[in-house]
Order: sequence, then C-alpha cells, then structure tokens
Amino acid sequence: MFIVRFLPSRKIAHLHSSASILEAAREAGVGIESTCGGKHKCGKCKVVVKSDPQSLSPPDEIEQKILGPSLLQRGYRLACMARVSKDTSVFVPRESRSAAQVILTSARDLPSPNSLRSPLKAYDIEVPPPTLSSPIADRERLLNLMASEYRLPHLATDPHVVRKIPFALRQNEGKVAVMVRKGQEIIGISEKKYSTAWGVAVDLGSTTIVAYLVDLFGANIVATKSTMNPQIPYGDDVISRISFCQQEAHGLQKLHKAAISAINGLIAEACEAADIMPEHIMEVAVVGNTAMHHFFLGVDPRFVSLAPYAPCLSSAQAYKASELGIKISNSGYVYLPPIKAGFVGSDSIACVLSTGLYRSRTNSLLIDIGTNGEIVLGNRDRMICCSTAAGPAFEGGHVKWGMRAASGAIEQVRIDPKTLDVTLSTIHGQQPIGICGSGLISAVAELIRTGCISHRGSFNKDLNTNRLRKGQRGMEFVLSWKEENPTGHDIVITQKDIAELQMAKGAIRAGISILMESLGSDIKRIYLAGAGGNYIDPSDAQTIGLIPSPPGCRIIGCGNAAGHGACLALIDLKSRRHAEKIANKMEYVELAGSARFQDLFFSHMFFEPPH
Amino acid sequence: MFIVRFLPSRKIAHLHSSASILEAAREAGVGIESTCGGKHKCGKCKVVVKSDPQSLSPPDEIEQKILGPSLLQRGYRLACMARVSKDTSVFVPRESRSAAQVILTSARDLPSPNSLRSPLKAYDIEVPPPTLSSPIADRERLLNLMASEYRLPHLATDPHVVRKIPFALRQNEGKVAVMVRKGQEIIGISEKKYSTAWGVAVDLGSTTIVAYLVDLFGANIVATKSTMNPQIPYGDDVISRISFCQQEAHGLQKLHKAAISAINGLIAEACEAADIMPEHIMEVAVVGNTAMHHFFLGVDPRFVSLAPYAPCLSSAQAYKASELGIKISNSGYVYLPPIKAGFVGSDSIACVLSTGLYRSRTNSLLIDIGTNGEIVLGNRDRMICCSTAAGPAFEGGHVKWGMRAASGAIEQVRIDPKTLDVTLSTIHGQQPIGICGSGLISAVAELIRTGCISHRGSFNKDLNTNRLRKGQRGMEFVLSWKEENPTGHDIVITQKDIAELQMAKGAIRAGISILMESLGSDIKRIYLAGAGGNYIDPSDAQTIGLIPSPPGCRIIGCGNAAGHGACLALIDLKSRRHAEKIANKMEYVELAGSARFQDLFFSHMFFEPPH
Repeated sequence: MFIVRFLPSRKIAHLHSSASILEAAREAGVGIESTCGGKHKCGKCKVVVKSDPQSLSPPDEIEQKILGPSLLQRGYRLACMARVSKDTSVFVPRESRSAAQVILTSARDLPSPNSLRSPLKAYDIEVPPPTLSSPIADRERLLNLMASEYRLPHLATDPHVVRKIPFALRQNEGKVAVMVRKGQEIIGISEKKYSTAWGVAVDLGSTTIVAYLVDLFGANIVATKSTMNPQIPYGDDVISRISFCQQEAHGLQKLHKAAISAINGLIAEACEAADIMPEHIMEVAVVGNTAMHHFFLGVDPRFVSLAPYAPCLSSAQAYKASELGIKISNSGYVYLPPIKAGFVGSDSIACVLSTGLYRSRTNSLLIDIGTNGEIVLGNRDRMICCSTAAGPAFEGGHVKWGMRAASGAIEQVRIDPKTLDVTLSTIHGQQPIGICGSGLISAVAELIRTGCISHRGSFNKDLNTNRLRKGQRGMEFVLSWKEENPTGHDIVITQKDIAELQMAKGAIRAGISILMESLGSDIKRIYLAGAGGNYIDPSDAQTIGLIPSPPGCRIIGCGNAAGHGACLALIDLKSRRHAEKIANKMEYVELAGSARFQDLFFSHMFFEPPH
Repeated sequence: MFIVRFLPSRKIAHLHSSASILEAAREAGVGIESTCGGKHKCGKCKVVVKSDPQSLSPPDEIEQKILGPSLLQRGYRLACMARVSKDTSVFVPRESRSAAQVILTSARDLPSPNSLRSPLKAYDIEVPPPTLSSPIADRERLLNLMASEYRLPHLATDPHVVRKIPFALRQNEGKVAVMVRKGQEIIGISEKKYSTAWGVAVDLGSTTIVAYLVDLFGANIVATKSTMNPQIPYGDDVISRISFCQQEAHGLQKLHKAAISAINGLIAEACEAADIMPEHIMEVAVVGNTAMHHFFLGVDPRFVSLAPYAPCLSSAQAYKASELGIKISNSGYVYLPPIKAGFVGSDSIACVLSTGLYRSRTNSLLIDIGTNGEIVLGNRDRMICCSTAAGPAFEGGHVKWGMRAASGAIEQVRIDPKTLDVTLSTIHGQQPIGICGSGLISAVAELIRTGCISHRGSFNKDLNTNRLRKGQRGMEFVLSWKEENPTGHDIVITQKDIAELQMAKGAIRAGISILMESLGSDIKRIYLAGAGGNYIDPSDAQTIGLIPSPPGCRIIGCGNAAGHGACLALIDLKSRRHAEKIANKMEYVELAGSARFQDLFFSHMFFEPPH
C-alpha cells in the first residue's frame, strides 16, 4: 500500500496499487484542475513533487513536452501522468487547485400561485368508520370518499401510504388530510392539515448543481443551495466523464451516485435552512444536459457521444424518488422534463420555458454559453435549435491562464486606448490568479477596440508598449505583472489563447447563423443564459462577434434560466405540458457533418472588421 | 450478557438483557411449541432446566398452577414464563419441540395455455437505428415501434429497463425481444428471444408457505418448494402474531421480514431446481389470509382483530417486487388478489377460484378448516361467506396430546366395536407422539360410533374397558399405552379435549348453517380445503357433525386449493378478473355478535343423536 500526502491541505490517499497522482487526489478528495479529464492534454494538473522524485514514474516524452525542461527541473509533474510507486508527498500549486466556481443561483420570482396548476393538491376529508354491517377496508373507504366527493376515482396508493392509512384514520375520528398527485395517486396522509406541499427543483449542471426548495402552494422559493458537481474529479466536461464511464469499471455507478448524493446533500441543507424534514418533500424536478440527465438516471450515455448522437431516452419521465435513491418522502416522485437531443438537454428546454421564448410573437435567440453552446431561435410558431462544440475556452480551458469563474478570476478588462494601460476587475475583488471566460471575452474585445489585434486576431507588433512581447510560443500581452498578483508570474493572454477564443466564438456564431438562415435575422431579444452567459458583457460579446447585433434587439442576461425553468416544471403542470410540447415541436439541426456550418465556422473565426 | 444453551440441539442464544427462555429460543432459532404465542395459557412450551435452577426467575403462581407440583419438582418450566438471570442450559423435550408439519403442496394441473390470457407477453422486434437526420432516442424508437406495429402505445419503462435498452439495441442490429406486462409496461428487454416468462405463485399460510415456480407460456408448474412459516416463533396463530406486533417494538418489521425472506428463500430454491436465476422471474402472485396478506405488505393488521374487523386494504394490488424486497427481476411485479374481510383472505378467494364454485349452477360449500374456519356457500349467481373462530383444536391446540400434522401424529383411529381395542395410523408411520386435528376428529367419530361417548359428548362410564378411566381432571380414554409409544406416558383423549372439539366443530357447523339458512340446503358439492381439510376423512367429519350430509352431495378434498388458485391468478388475467369479481360479489356475513349464530353454535356443539 502507498500513501500519498497532498500539500498544503495535508489530505492523504491510501492506494492499494499504483495509480496516478490525479487518481490519488480523487481518492483523497483533493481538487486538482483537469480540464481534459486526465487525458494528458490540457496541462492544467501541474503538481510539485516534495519527496524523493523516484517515488513517481519518470516523465515520458509527452509529459516532458507539455511541461518543458524548466518546470521539470523544478520538480513539476503532471498529476494525470505521474504514477505513484512509493509513499510520496506532492504540493498542489494555487493555479492547479480546482477553485469553487461562483455559482449562479438566482432564479427569477415564480408566477402567482393562482395562475398555476400544481401537481400536488391537499384535501381535508372525513372518512366514516367501518361498521359491523359494512366492515369496508380502511383504504377502500378512503378511496370511495375521494371518488364520490372529489371525482377522483381509482387513486393509486403505494405500500408506504397504505401502511399509514389505518393509524391516520383512527387518530382523529376519521379526519385526515391527503396529498394527491396529479389526481392519480395519494402520496401522503396525515392527521394534520398540510400547510403546503414542499418540492425541490434541481439544476444539475456539469460544473455546478443548484437546488431550490419551493413551497408549491405559495409558489415561493424558500431556500437555495448550491455545490460544485462532485463528478468534476472524473472529468471536467461531459465528454471526459462519458469516457470515464467507458473506461472504468463501475464508472457509471460512480458518476450516478456522485450526482444523487450531491442532490441529497443539497436537499438536506435546504431543509435545514427552512426547518423542515426531507421526508416532507413530495416532489422533485431535475433538469440538466443530456449526459447529466442520463447520469442522474443511471443510464450510460456513451452512445450520446457517438454519431448520430441519439440519446438513450428523451421524453419526460416520472419515477418514485426512492427508485433513484433521492431521499425525500418515501412516496414522493422525481419529474424530469424531456430532452431534445444528445446535446440539447432538459436544461435548454427549461431555459426556453423560463424565457417564454415559446410564446413570443417575435423571434428570440437563446444562447447557453459553455463548453457546448446550446442555441435556440424561434417564436411561438416555430423553434429551431442546435448545439455547437465550442470547446473549453469559455470555461477557462485550453487558455494559458484560463480558469473557471472563481474568486480571483479576471472577469473584466479595460485598456486605456492611449496609454494601453490595463485595469482589471476580478471576482470577489481578489488579486488576480487567472482569467475566466467573461474576462477573456472582455480582454479580447478591448484588444480589438484599442487596435492591439487585427480583425484576423493577430497582435499588432508595432505597438509602443512593453505589455506586448514575444513569449515562449509566439506573441503575448501582459494583463497583470507578477508584482501585481500572487502567482509569481506575469498573467498574460497569448496569441494561442486568442485563437482558442476565435474557435469557440466561431462555433457558436456559426450555429447562430445556421439557425438565422433558416428562420430569419429579425431578432428582438437575445437571452444569454447560464453562468457564462450571465456574466458576459453584452457589448463585449458583440464586439468580438459572439452574438449578432440586429437592429432594435434587446440583450438580456437571464440568470439561471435553467433553474427557473426547473422551478416552473416543479410547481406547474401547465409548464410541464409546455416543456413536453417544446421538446416535440422544436426542430433540431445537427451541425456535425454540415459543410455549411464548416464554412460559417471559418468565416466567423475572424473578428468583425472595424466600421 | 447471558448465554442460553438449548439441549439436545446445543444451539446457543446470546442475550443482552434478561429475556424469557422462549425469546431466547427464537433468538437461537430453536423451535419450541407455543400455541398461545407466549401468553402463559397453553402450557405447550415446557422445558427442563439442566443447570442451576437459580439461573431462572422463580415460577409464579400461574406457572405453578399450569405445571403442577410433580413437573416443577422434576425441573420443568414454561419457556414463556421463566426468565434468564444467569447463563443456563435447558432441555427441550420431544413433545415441546415444534415439529415440521406435513405440508400440503400438491396443486392440481393448470389449464391449457391456449385458454389463458397471460399477464406477460414477449415480442420479437427489430428497432431501426437512429440516423443523423432523425436521431430519435433509443427508448422512443422502441416505443414508437411497439405503438405502430403492436398497437401498444404509451408503454411505461422503469429505470432498470431504460438502462438496458441502449446496449440491447446495439447488440444484434436492433433485433431484440421485449417482455410486456398487461400491455402497459416493458419489464424486460433481451438480445435473445424469451423461451418463456417465469413466475412464482405463493400460498402464504400462517403455518406453512408453499411456492410454485411456473412457466407462464406453457402453464406448467416446474418446481414446488415449501417451508414452515418462520413467523411461528412469534405466535402460532394470526391472533397471537397480531398481539406480538402490538407489544413488541419493530414487531411488525420482524414479521414482515420473516415472510419476505422465507419467500425469497423458496424462490431461490425453486430456481435452483429449475436451473434458472431469480432475476429471470418476472411476476409473483401471493395469496394468504388477511393477516398474512397485511404482514407481507408490511401493513399492521392490529385493527383486523378489533370489531368491526375491517381490513386495512382489500382490493387487488400490484407492486414492483423490489418495493417489497422480493428478489426477482428488478422490473418484476408482485400481484395480490383481493381479500374479502378481516377473516376472509385472498386464500379463500383463491380457493373459490380454484374449485370453480363461482361458475357452478348448483350450490357448493367450501370449508377451509383451521383455527379460523372460512366458509363459502354459493353458485354462479350468489355467494355468501363467513369466518368462524373455531379455536386451535383442529391444529392440535388446547388438546392435551394435541400437535400439528407432523411425523408421529395420530391421524386416524379405529376402535373395535366389540373389544374397544384401538388401531392407530400415524403420519409417516412413526410411533405416536400426539394427536393432530384429523386424528382427533377420527377418534371422536369412533368413540361416537362405538357408543363410548353420548351425543352430548360425555363418556359412557359403564364401559367395560381399562382404556376409559378417571384422570387428573375428569374422564379420559387411552389411545396409546406408554409401552407403545416413545413419550413415556399414556396418550389419552380427555373429556376436556372432546369439549374443545365440540366447540370447534360447533362454531364451523353453525357458520355453515347460517349460510344455508340464507342460501338453501340443496348442496351438491362440499369442498374440504387446506391441509386440515384435505386429510380429514369425510365420513368422520359427517359422523361428528362437522359438515352436513345433504342427499346426493359429493365431498371433495381439494388439496392445496389456495395454492392452485394462486397459480391461476399468476398466469391468467381472466382469473385475476374473476378473483376481483368474486371479492366484490361475494356477500360477507359477520358472525360476531349474531344471536342466531350463538344459538346455532350451542345446538351444534352436540353430536347428532344416533338414528
């Protein structure tokens, strides 16, 4: 057995056989950045060996190439490649630590309860006692009453409810309250009246998970809890998690359980905040992208990543929560809105629901910006959607100083057009340690505005500033001098970083163009959804050409629209029907293999020429 | 901690606090007879202290009275009363050991599969692959095909099936077999064709449990397994088990789990015999009396034992097997036919189903003889039923030498009318160690035939035989001299034993009379059901007046009719509908509190005067 000690946290992994440092870190619960999911590509998982270098496998050619001689000499290794052969200690430098992302939890207010059709309804009833001349069974007397008085015949009951009925009926002379789901099943019985029905809406994101505890009768969000997705150590994005599933024995179970237990944890936290018990929760609604949706259900999404990218299931589902291990009332249900396609999940459907795009007369464009950019364009008559593989640049991946939207990430850049001096804003106002997606967009927009880069994206070498210089691999622009930040290095934006952003924005913009070619360019609203979208400055996004600029168009950061949509699906049967209709009606355009998309992608890689 | 060692088996109980010997025996898995369920009444649980008598609590007045000075002196104690205060060893004498009852398993042949409507149907289908232009989800392509080709729209799927679909569809170019339940849900998917659907029918009796493994498509019973009900240590009859539920913390859970694990054990045994896996079983049908039905579902039946004796639930139920802990296919179901009343369970409904009483033009009478005698009288137009508390005499309770129908039980008695010599038949031809129900009926019938007892039931004291003598508590008749049996005692039938039988038969015969008064006395068939019924000699039963003797009436021992009815309900949806109709249609007559029943009971306690 080997022991791996991680510094500075001093967490320890016990290994029964040789494993990579990254695997040991997962074991010990130490977060190490790994954008590529341990595939020896991103170079984000640098660690420093603090004990005998012989305790690790020697670096091979690939690792040597990624790290370069200087880092190697200083004891740097890639956590995904170095395998443990003896007890060892490694130091995880600040820039390799996976920081807690700023989680966008705010969901807009919910509609008035009067306008909703709740899936749960409570009835206060009085069940007559059995008599010697008519000793009808407890459950059947209750059901007969519900049929005759409320026209709810054939109500189902599960064993948990059946077990409670005899006692509830004898507590208070037959006066009981019952909770009925969708007019179909009694899922609760109590001697006391129900003050409300409790539910939880979950936005199960690849990176973050947000849970909203909702009072269904009042249509109020009473608590919001969020956490990083504990699946991250198995791969930063869905594709690397799908690979993990395929390569690891019980990989699917690990990912499934990670999601379930994280959600159970959030439910417990939210209940504590609202001073109720998880057993009081009767209904849960979960949205997520297709891979998250499948992981949540314990369904292997490997075929989603292979052409023709068909999901394993797509229509709306409802299961007993207990069947999925979700810890709420024994008789409660989990509802999952439908998904559209392999890369257009129920989170996108929830965004359409939340923004009201599906009932607008005029065209709206909805963009969820992330590693995959899901795009919907349409109105109440027609909706089309697509998904583009933008790559990880918007989440900080493949970018030299890229990082997620966590404390210390540069989120906004301003460059003085005359002096070319730089002013930075960082998340939580911390000293800068890297650049997140919105910071990268902001920086590039400013470099364009100030003429530091051409519309093709190359640095203007004639500038009179020491910030622009030749780096190890081409030109780079210094955003933060090493004296101004705690990393001990200059934080720069490189020619390659700009190229990464060009590819990412090119992909999304090409997707938008494809949809506009089909449905028209007269767009009155652009919704920027998701954490990425919400923090992006609309004018920066237009400057780099990420989104179009149709005349008279409003650009709206719509917060956590997926979470808001999940809340609507939780509390309102009409919203569920809408979600199901949206999934049926919305046309999906597959971009993979489209020559037109390739053409548009290349032309949109460039920035708009200055007017 | 105390240790209790049981001799001769040498089994050991570890006790964390003081407990009765009976509780220790349950702990150690030692079967001690306890007809009254540990209520200090039956005196069947005699044991002998082999270590320091001080290791047990001293006998109180009740125990002293039940045992008498002679047994007390010889170290006898009642296991239900003696509490352990030190490590101890006790000897369980042969007559106190709960013997394995002879279990009636034989069920009649099942009808031809062509006449049945199976709840399970297999389809061999070919699901087209997804394409880039139509990347429809796997589950939805499958469901679309089932809807268009087989007119089975809206089929449900649980997560277990959903998880299998993507792999099954890609194994053999979309060729798969699916198992559909009731035209409503896909409960299995496989790359190989289904040769059959496997099911298990269970007769969950208070004393014995029988499981039949059935090939549903061939309508064949391929294996039959049985066991004593492991709930017996918690009480011999349902009333004492219900008391156990009320008095013990987690009593219900213990009884529920005992039933579930016994059934799982039988399923595993039956599968081994047929060389299949429990996972291959798709459907289970369970019948039992109301208390057993409730215990199986984990529902507390305490109110069933209180006026007006209403069950907690009565209509037919179907649950996912996994929801009840039944270990078959993850997606399989358990079906429970309806029950009629607190003391007319689904076993009685199954008997009506099996005998075909519900479709006969002429009147038939069905009697299930046990501690509770369930009686049904009727024809295809009208059926009435009742239940009488016959008491434990037919199962050997409250009878000095009474025992269950196990090896060594006297089951038939013949008395020479001249010499009054006795010839005995015992179960398995063993030396006699007690008298079971059919033996008691046979003995009393012979005592009547030979004039040894009057029609009022009292011994004729003028007989010239040393077999009739004055015992400790009134007259008694010796069936087996102590030299002829291994107990070391004369096996006798006492005046009190005869009185017990008179009360038991009086109750059942009064119930029959009540039903006949309502529906007429023209009966063409009498079915004797259950283990008790099947072994009773019809002419003995008529001699003691247990059953009527209408002219032209056939008396039919119908084997394990409940088990046979359970098999029918398992394999045939029409039988399920019949069972549900029977439960609705059959009228229930409550005898508790009926003055007419009391009158009839007293008059039927006497035997028919000789013609």
